[in-house]
Amino acid sequence: MADILHRIGIKTTSIEAVYEALTTQAGLAGWWTSNTSGSGDQVGNIIKFRFGAGGFDMKVAALNPAHLVVWELADGPEEWLGTRISFELKQEDDYVIVLFKHLNWKEPVEFMHHCSTKWAIFLMSLKSLIETGKGAPDPVDLKIDNWN
Amino acid sequence: MADILHRIGIKTTSIEAVYEALTTQAGLAGWWTSNTSGSGDQVGNIIKFRFGAGGFDMKVAALNPAHLVVWELADGPEEWLGTRISFELKQEDDYVIVLFKHLNWKEPVEFMHHCSTKWAIFLMSLKSLIETGKGAPDPVDLKIDNWN
Repeated sequence: MADILHRIGIKTTSIEAVYEALTTQAGLAGWWTSNTSGSGDQVGNIIKFRFGAGGFDMKVAALNPAHLVVWELADGPEEWLGTRISFELKQEDDYVIVLFKHLNWKEPVEFMHHCSTKWAIFLMSLKSLIETGKGAPDPVDLKIDNWN
Repeated sequence: MADILHRIGIKTTSIEAVYEALTTQAGLAGWWTSNTSGSGDQVGNIIKFRFGAGGFDMKVAALNPAHLVVWELADGPEEWLGTRISFELKQEDDYVIVLFKHLNWKEPVEFMHHCSTKWAIFLMSLKSLIETGKGAPDPVDLKIDNWN
């Protein structure tokens, strides 16, 4: 098993604003992909994220308002099957810290390397959305390699 | 054991230019930290990287010119002890692909989450250095959280 881990700090005292960006259609469309449908504010909900090259359906597996969001992959690329994504939030000084985990990859394949870098870029997009009001979701996301 | 993995693609047909950015003082100072001393073009060399908050001494453990650079931590923060860093390069279409690994973390501590995101940012700085002539090394690096 292999895991992707990240940490960002968002300069805000509103941990609720960060939680909203992870649980509402408008929030998620503001930093991950513009083509997001569904809402992530209830356990069991399915959120559909679509990108140029395909997409992911995420099932909301756990929520602890303003502190934790957990998704399980419901449908998506073969390499993502069985994986789980979590966002843990906490306030530290004037930052909301996001600890991100994309857990349980079967193999550390080259696509996992790509997704790890890409998650960092999207988390920086989340940071920007909250700090400036403007994120960079797909299709205006920062491209990192020949795969996207 | 836990590993950080990343993948970037640099739009260039000069794999040698990317290798130089990973093995010369000027190259490394152009994307990771301006305060770099030593050269990484011989196995056994020590390169000293210094940042505001401390630094790392890396021993060049293996080289395969234009294809592979491997470092072992010689000195640095406790969490990095025993870790190993590698950059694998290959040409794909009009991109040089860099597969990056920072291997053998004893524990997936919060600092590892931070370093994972920060490595993505520095690899994007390497991409920028080669594509535009200008990277964003410390201290002008993009800040990601309250630790840096």
